[in-house]
Amino acid sequence: MTVILPAHALETARLCAAAARAATLPHFRARTAVEDKSDDSPVTVADQGAERAMRAIIAQHHPDHDILGEEYGGTSTNRRHWTWVIDPIDGTRAFITGRPSFTTLIALLYDGRPVLGLIDQPVTGERWIGIEGQRTTFEARTMPGEIGTRPCRALDRAELSCTSPDMLVPPFDDRFASLKRTVRRTSWGGDAYGYGLLALGQIDLVAECTMKPWDWAALVPVVTGAGGSMTDWAGAPLSLDGDGTVLACGDPAMHADAIAALSPRATIR
Amino acid sequence: MTVILPAHALETARLCAAAARAATLPHFRARTAVEDKSDDSPVTVADQGAERAMRAIIAQHHPDHDILGEEYGGTSTNRRHWTWVIDPIDGTRAFITGRPSFTTLIALLYDGRPVLGLIDQPVTGERWIGIEGQRTTFEARTMPGEIGTRPCRALDRAELSCTSPDMLVPPFDDRFASLKRTVRRTSWGGDAYGYGLLALGQIDLVAECTMKPWDWAALVPVVTGAGGSMTDWAGAPLSLDGDGTVLACGDPAMHADAIAALSPRATIR
Repeated sequence: MTVILPAHALETARLCAAAARAATLPHFRARTAVEDKSDDSPVTVADQGAERAMRAIIAQHHPDHDILGEEYGGTSTNRRHWTWVIDPIDGTRAFITGRPSFTTLIALLYDGRPVLGLIDQPVTGERWIGIEGQRTTFEARTMPGEIGTRPCRALDRAELSCTSPDMLVPPFDDRFASLKRTVRRTSWGGDAYGYGLLALGQIDLVAECTMKPWDWAALVPVVTGAGGSMTDWAGAPLSLDGDGTVLACGDPAMHADAIAALSPRATIR
Repeated sequence: MTVILPAHALETARLCAAAARAATLPHFRARTAVEDKSDDSPVTVADQGAERAMRAIIAQHHPDHDILGEEYGGTSTNRRHWTWVIDPIDGTRAFITGRPSFTTLIALLYDGRPVLGLIDQPVTGERWIGIEGQRTTFEARTMPGEIGTRPCRALDRAELSCTSPDMLVPPFDDRFASLKRTVRRTSWGGDAYGYGLLALGQIDLVAECTMKPWDWAALVPVVTGAGGSMTDWAGAPLSLDGDGTVLACGDPAMHADAIAALSPRATIR
């Protein structure tokens, strides 16, 4: 059943995204000595500064909500109904290497279920907003508005995306390889940005693993509100105590075949 | 010896980049049926339209120059001193999946040696210009101006980048893996954009193979004018009849160690 968002929840998410932009942009592409091994690297300063700013905004507007963040942890005990799950810089490696594909992720969960999700790219100004039960919207310099995934019923026509082969640790590497063999093409890189491209109808599948709640929570309302599906690799809803696998399908009609290709049984040829 | 560019060569390159923007942007993120198998896909239309526009500009301003392009081929016989080498959309897969990291590449070669290179990203408006003997410049909404690579003498401190593991066909896969084992981190995706990030001091190494002349020609003046080096994996200058391997080092002091790590001998452990 669709829940009613707390008053001003979307405004809170927008304030958080604006604060994260202000905290991250001055450190993007900052010139640093590569020998710097300290914890004060630009990405660490930006990450922590953005999360502190967002926590302050949430605490001010929703003092009765829990907060779970990538940098400073937090509660996920579900003793309160509402939990904000935030990742100030998703795509740390993209940020470090100067790629404008890192994002800030902001999600609001009701009893563990993401009902509001915001993906923000500070450099390009692109922003995706997903709310349970509503059509996902895209804000950008060009082509803003309501968005949707594209039809793609057959795996062998699908564009698959994954952030990096290095995230595919055993036994997930063989299962991903099994899916990769069935699709039309695979592209690499992207982090959460790839799910935004799926919601825009540019990519058909994203399959990733070793994902933390702050990596996927904001993506669920964005992808489902655009007509897609989000589950783990067994086809179950994503949960805070899941196995870290994530599968996004632009066309839910493809979901069963993708799950079959990702099944451990499929890796036995 | 540094040659003197033909009159108006840089202006010609700028006109080409502007024409390519006009030809590609309307097709970026165009909604298409994934079942479309025709040759009239948005990327094909954009690719061919951009190359035709650039060829017309070059032919008008430099009728005595050769042209070698990714879409329509051309001469590379070196019977004329000057050859324009152009790639309307480098990063076709990035373009197809809606990633603003594809680029237009425009190079001018003198007797096979790239002396002018332009990298243009139409969506973000970023543009790199390299001219032999001059400092590379970067044009963008933020932080434009002269740019340079960053110091990084030790391989184990280096950020390595490569477009895709799928380009690493045998025997280059083992040689790349040998280099990857010695570096600090590897990130994926990027195409020519990765060399631009190296010129901006954000990445230290790019190693790729199966590269055609239009993939690397424009990058040479950009990288070398920013203080880096560009050779093949044997350490030799890139040439039109080379083996398709490309190594860019932000800090030339790292070059010998990188070449040693990429050597076929290094793959025998």
